[in-house]
Amino acid sequence: MVRVAVAGASGYAGAEVLRLLLGHPDVEVGALTAASSAGTPLGQHAPHLLPLADRVLEPTSAEVLAGHDVVVLALPHGSSGPLAAELGDEVLVVDAAADHRLADAAAWEAFYGSPHAGTWPYALPELPLAGGGRQRDALVGARRLAVPGCYPTACTLALAPGMAAGLCEADDVVVVAASGTSGAGRAAKVTMLGAEVMGSMSPYGVGGVHRHTPEVEQGLAAAAGEPVRASFTPTLAPMPRGILATATARTQPGTTAAQVRAAWQDAYADEAFVHVLPEGRWPRTKDVAGSNAVHLQVALDERVGRVVAVAAVDNLVKGTAGAAVQGLNIALGLPEGAGLSAVGLAP
Amino acid sequence: MVRVAVAGASGYAGAEVLRLLLGHPDVEVGALTAASSAGTPLGQHAPHLLPLADRVLEPTSAEVLAGHDVVVLALPHGSSGPLAAELGDEVLVVDAAADHRLADAAAWEAFYGSPHAGTWPYALPELPLAGGGRQRDALVGARRLAVPGCYPTACTLALAPGMAAGLCEADDVVVVAASGTSGAGRAAKVTMLGAEVMGSMSPYGVGGVHRHTPEVEQGLAAAAGEPVRASFTPTLAPMPRGILATATARTQPGTTAAQVRAAWQDAYADEAFVHVLPEGRWPRTKDVAGSNAVHLQVALDERVGRVVAVAAVDNLVKGTAGAAVQGLNIALGLPEGAGLSAVGLAP
Amino acid sequence: MVRVAVAGASGYAGAEVLRLLLGHPDVEVGALTAASSAGTPLGQHAPHLLPLADRVLEPTSAEVLAGHDVVVLALPHGSSGPLAAELGDEVLVVDAAADHRLADAAAWEAFYGSPHAGTWPYALPELPLAGGGRQRDALVGARRLAVPGCYPTACTLALAPGMAAGLCEADDVVVVAASGTSGAGRAAKVTMLGAEVMGSMSPYGVGGVHRHTPEVEQGLAAAAGEPVRASFTPTLAPMPRGILATATARTQPGTTAAQVRAAWQDAYADEAFVHVLPEGRWPRTKDVAGSNAVHLQVALDERVGRVVAVAAVDNLVKGTAGAAVQGLNIALGLPEGAGLSAVGLAP
Amino acid sequence: MVRVAVAGASGYAGAEVLRLLLGHPDVEVGALTAASSAGTPLGQHAPHLLPLADRVLEPTSAEVLAGHDVVVLALPHGSSGPLAAELGDEVLVVDAAADHRLADAAAWEAFYGSPHAGTWPYALPELPLAGGGRQRDALVGARRLAVPGCYPTACTLALAPGMAAGLCEADDVVVVAASGTSGAGRAAKVTMLGAEVMGSMSPYGVGGVHRHTPEVEQGLAAAAGEPVRASFTPTLAPMPRGILATATARTQPGTTAAQVRAAWQDAYADEAFVHVLPEGRWPRTKDVAGSNAVHLQVALDERVGRVVAVAAVDNLVKGTAGAAVQGLNIALGLPEGAGLSAVGLAP
Repeated sequence: MVRVAVAGASGYAGAEVLRLLLGHPDVEVGALTAASSAGTPLGQHAPHLLPLADRVLEPTSAEVLAGHDVVVLALPHGSSGPLAAELGDEVLVVDAAADHRLADAAAWEAFYGSPHAGTWPYALPELPLAGGGRQRDALVGARRLAVPGCYPTACTLALAPGMAAGLCEADDVVVVAASGTSGAGRAAKVTMLGAEVMGSMSPYGVGGVHRHTPEVEQGLAAAAGEPVRASFTPTLAPMPRGILATATARTQPGTTAAQVRAAWQDAYADEAFVHVLPEGRWPRTKDVAGSNAVHLQVALDERVGRVVAVAAVDNLVKGTAGAAVQGLNIALGLPEGAGLSAVGLAP
Repeated sequence: MVRVAVAGASGYAGAEVLRLLLGHPDVEVGALTAASSAGTPLGQHAPHLLPLADRVLEPTSAEVLAGHDVVVLALPHGSSGPLAAELGDEVLVVDAAADHRLADAAAWEAFYGSPHAGTWPYALPELPLAGGGRQRDALVGARRLAVPGCYPTACTLALAPGMAAGLCEADDVVVVAASGTSGAGRAAKVTMLGAEVMGSMSPYGVGGVHRHTPEVEQGLAAAAGEPVRASFTPTLAPMPRGILATATARTQPGTTAAQVRAAWQDAYADEAFVHVLPEGRWPRTKDVAGSNAVHLQVALDERVGRVVAVAAVDNLVKGTAGAAVQGLNIALGLPEGAGLSAVGLAP
Repeated sequence: MVRVAVAGASGYAGAEVLRLLLGHPDVEVGALTAASSAGTPLGQHAPHLLPLADRVLEPTSAEVLAGHDVVVLALPHGSSGPLAAELGDEVLVVDAAADHRLADAAAWEAFYGSPHAGTWPYALPELPLAGGGRQRDALVGARRLAVPGCYPTACTLALAPGMAAGLCEADDVVVVAASGTSGAGRAAKVTMLGAEVMGSMSPYGVGGVHRHTPEVEQGLAAAAGEPVRASFTPTLAPMPRGILATATARTQPGTTAAQVRAAWQDAYADEAFVHVLPEGRWPRTKDVAGSNAVHLQVALDERVGRVVAVAAVDNLVKGTAGAAVQGLNIALGLPEGAGLSAVGLAP
Repeated sequence: MVRVAVAGASGYAGAEVLRLLLGHPDVEVGALTAASSAGTPLGQHAPHLLPLADRVLEPTSAEVLAGHDVVVLALPHGSSGPLAAELGDEVLVVDAAADHRLADAAAWEAFYGSPHAGTWPYALPELPLAGGGRQRDALVGARRLAVPGCYPTACTLALAPGMAAGLCEADDVVVVAASGTSGAGRAAKVTMLGAEVMGSMSPYGVGGVHRHTPEVEQGLAAAAGEPVRASFTPTLAPMPRGILATATARTQPGTTAAQVRAAWQDAYADEAFVHVLPEGRWPRTKDVAGSNAVHLQVALDERVGRVVAVAAVDNLVKGTAGAAVQGLNIALGLPEGAGLSAVGLAP
C-alpha cells in the first residue's frame, strides 16, 4: 500500500483528493493537515467523508508530512516550494497549487507577482505534443508533479487536437469558460454566498488578467509547437462544480469538417478519460460530476473560419484531485485509472 | 460474476442502478431494456454512463430479461407482477416500483386504486423490528425483493429507533419531507421544467393522499409493534437529488434527551450506511449525494413533548438504486456493501 | 412626500426596503447608513439598485437618522431600542429586528438571552384576532412598529384562520418551514457559501430552540384566544429567496373539509396580499418572489385528524421589507399597498 | 388608456409581457389568447399574475385580437405575418418572434428555412448607428415592431460602442453567451427538466448554426457601418432567467484603454436602461432580474489585441417583454420607461 498524506485537507481540493483516495485500492490515507482548522475533526469540515470523519487535522508542517510515500499539497499558492524542499527527493510531492506549473519565469512573475519557484512535470497526461508523444511520458517515475489548473485542463484539452494536427492558427485563440463556485475555494466571502451566486452568472478576471491565461497558452503551445496567444475570460456559474470551456481558434484555409472531426477523435482515441462525444451531442458538466472524465465536442464554423471546441470537466476531479491521483498513479507505476472513475453523477 | 439485467434503463432509477453496478466487483451488466426508448443507445439518455454509452436498449420483455441471475425492474407501477411471474422463481427479481411493498391489501387499494399484487420482502435491511432483530433477516436468500420508496426510507429510518425503543407515541407522527426533482422521474412535464423548479419550493400530495403514506406507517409500525398513524407532506425542493425528512412524534411522558440519544445511537451503531451524526451537527442532503449513506440527527423538544428526527438520503441511491443493490447483495450472500459507498459527493 | 431613512442599507433586508421604496409614489429616500460599509457607495453592495448606486453610506447614528419622517431599522438584534429612544416620538420607527416583537418578556429572555426591550405594535395587519378584528387596527397612527419575523409571518398566516374559527386545537401545532438562504443575512460564512448550499437541504435550530418559535406561538395565540404550543423546525433550501411553511394542527372532532375551506377563504377574502389559491393548486415560493403576496392552501387529512396548511412568502418582502412598507403605509394613513405589488417574478 | 391584447399569454414571454403591463400606468390589459391552453384560466399557467388569475384564455385569432390599440404577439415563429395582415394598419402590432427582424432575406432563409416575411422596425432603441443617431428614431410612430432576440440584445449592445466608434474590427467577432433556461420556452422537454439542468452547463447550436447569429451580425453591422462576421456560441446555464454575453472583437492597432472606456461610456451616457458599470465591477445577471436594465462592462486586453465586453440582461425583460413595452411606448409617444424598471431583484 502507498501511504499518502494530504496537506490542506479541510479545503475543497484536499477533501476531494481524500474522497478519491478512499476508493483507491492501493492507497492508505496517512496524515491530514490544515492551517486554521488544525485540531478539529475532518467531519466538521467534510461530513460527506464518513470513514474519515473522526480523524483530527494536524498542523501543516514537514514533520507531520514526512514518512509518507506521497504528499499531496492542496495549499494556497506560495507554500509548496519550501515544504517540498524539506520533504526530500524520495517522496513524491504532488502540488495542486500553481507554483510549479509554468516554464516561463517571466510569465509567472507577470501574472503572479512573485519570484518563480521552478517548474515541475505538468500532470496533464493526455496532452498531445507537437511532433508526437504525450505529456504522460514526462510523468513516469517523477518525484514532483504540478497538477494543472482547472480551467487550463479544460481549455487545453479542448483545442489541443487542432493545434497538434496543424489545423488551427495559434495567434488568436478565444476562450470563455464557466466554472462552478467551488472553484473559488472554501474561504468565506460575501460575493460567494449562496444568495449571491444562485441564479446568477458573472465574469471575473476579464481582459487577459486571470492567472490561468499563460497556463492555457503554455499547454496549447506544447501541442502547436509554436507560441499561442489566447484571450481567456472566466465566468462564475450557479452550480457547485464543473467547468464548461468554449474554445475557438481560426482554422487554416481549406480545413474541412471531416479533418476536424478526425483530428479530435484520433487525438483521444486511446484515452480512457477524454471522450469525444458522438456527433450531435454536446457536453454537459453534470455528466462528468464526480468523475475524472472529460466530455468533448467540436464543430467547424466554415462561415467565419473558426473551429469551436467545448469541453466539460469536473473542476475538483479532472480539474484538480483526479489529476493529482492520475498523476501519482503514473509516477508510481500504478494502473493509471486506479481510484478514478469515468462515470459521472447525473442527474 | 452475477449477471444483472435492468428493465427501464433509460429512466433515472434504472440509470442509477447501472451507475452502481458499473462499480460492483461481482456484477456483469446484462440486458438493458426500455419502453419508448428501445432501439436507441443508452448514451443518448444517460451520457454520464460512459462505459455503457453504446449499448442499445432492447424492448422490455420476459424473453430479453430471461437468462440473468438478477433482474432489476425500474418500471412504472403495475408492470412488475406479470413480468416476475414469467421470469421464474430461480431468478432474483428486484422491484423498484411500489407494487409489492405493502402487506395491507386494503391500504394498497385505497392509495393506488388497483388490485393488490402481493407482498415481497421489504428491502430496508437496517429497520429495527419490534421485539428485536432487523428487517435484514427477511432478505437473506430471497428471490423477490421490494425496494422501499424513497420517502419511506428516509422517514422510517428517522423515527424507527424511537418507536422500537418505546420512547415515541405511535398515533400522531408528523413528517414533512423535501425531495429533489429527480424523484418525479424523467417524463417531460411543464411543471418539472428547470425554469419552473429552480428557486422554488412547493408541496404536493398534501392532506394524507400521497401514496407513500401507508408505506411510512407500515415501516414505523414494524418498529413500534403497533399501528402507526402519520401525517405526511412531501415537498419539491430546487435540487436534482436528495431527500430531507423532518419527522416528529410525541414522546412518552418522562422521556429524557439522554434516552433519545442512546436509542438512536444504539439502533444504528452496527450499521455501515446509517449514521447518527455527532451532537450539534445536522444532516445535509449534499453530504449523501451519490452515496448509500443515511445521515441522521435527533433532538428532544421537551417544551412541546416531541422528538424531532431528521434524515438525509439520496433519493436515487439509498432511496432507490442503492437499496436495490444492497438488497441483492444480501439476498445472494455477497458482501452487503459491494458496489456501494458511504461517501457522498460534496460540495 | 414622506422622507424615509434606512439604517443597515447594505444588508439584504435594508437593500430590499430600498428596492420597494424606489417604487413608492409617496416616498423620498433619505439617509442610508451602515456599519462596516459606511463610506462606500451603495452600488458596491447592491448593484441592482441602479438609481441609488452612487449614494454613499453614512455611519449609523441618531444624528444621521434624525430629521426624517420615517426611519427603518434593518440592524442586528439589540440595536434598535437605544436608537429609537434618541429619535424621539414624532418619528415613525419601523424595526425589522426582533427586539420589540414579543409581548412575553420571559419568552424573550429564554430565547434571546438578553433583557426584554419592550413591545411595539406587531406589523402583521392581516392577522385575524380571536373575538374579531384584525391586527391592522393596532398599526393605525402608530409611531413604533415591530416588523414580524419571516418564518412567523408565513406560519402564523397559514394556520390563523383555523385557530380563529375554533377548528384547530392549540396545543400540538407542528410546523416545518423551508427558507431561502438570504434569510441567513449577508455575513460571510463558510456554511452559507454557494458551493455548500446549492443542491442541498438541511435543518437548523431543531428541537424547539429557534428564536422564531415563541413568535409563531404568540401570533397563533392571538388568533386562537388561548395559548398555543408549537414544534417549529426551520430548514435551509437551495434558493436565494422564499419561505414555504407547512403547518399542521389537530382538528376539533367533527371538523369537515368544507368548514376548513370556508374558514380559510373567509379569513382572507378582503385581504389584498393574502390569497387562498383555488382548490387543487398549491403554493410555490417562486410565484411570490419579489412580491408582498402570500399564497396559501389548506387540506384536511381526516384519516389522521389534522389540517395541513401551506404558505409561501418572499422572506425579504412580505417576510421583512414589504411588511415594513405595508406597516408604514398603515401607520401614516397612506394607501396600504403603496409601493407594493401582489405580482411575483416567475419563472 | 391604451388597450393591449396579448397573444400567447400562457408562455413565458407572454406572461412576462403581462407582468409588465400590470404595472404600466397607461395600459389596460385586453384579450389574452393561447393555443392549446385556450379555455383555461391564466392562473393555472401563471399563478404569479394574481390580478389576472381568473381571466380565461381565448383562442388566438384575428377576431379576438381585433379592437385593441396594441397587439403583442408572443407566438412561435411563422405565425405573426398572417395575423398582422388581418389586424390592419391602424393597430400597433409588436412581434416578439423572429419573423420580421432580419433585413436580409437570404440570411433569413439560410437560418430559418422558410420564406422571408418582410422586415419591421427593430425595437432596440439604444443601438448607436454608424454615422450617428440611434435605432430609436425608427420606432417613433411605427405600427409594426420586431422585438429583438434575447441573445442579440445582449451581444449587440455589448459591442456596438466599439463598432460605432471605429475601435473594433468587424470581421472576427467572437461571442459566447449563457442563458437561463426560460429562454427555451415553456414546452415540456426531457432535456429541460429541472433534474437535467440544475447543476449543469451545456452548449447548443454550436458552430455558427444558431438562428440568432445573423441577427447579432445585423445589429453590429448597423453600428459599424460595414458587414460584421461573428462566431456565436450559446450555452444553457442553471438559472431560470438571465443572459450573460461575453463578446470580443479585435481592436484597431493603437487603441488605448482610455479610448475604449470613453467609447462605451459615451455611447450609453444618455440611456436610462443601459448602464456601463464603474471600473472594476462586472455585471451579474441577478442584478438585472425582472428589470429592463442592461449592465455592461468592458476591458481591453492589449496583449492579445482584443476588447472584451460583457453584458447582462434579463432574457425575458430587456430580452423580450421589456423591449416590447419599451417599443410600444416609443411608437405611441408614451414615456419610454413607462411600466419598466431599471431596478433588479437581487439577491
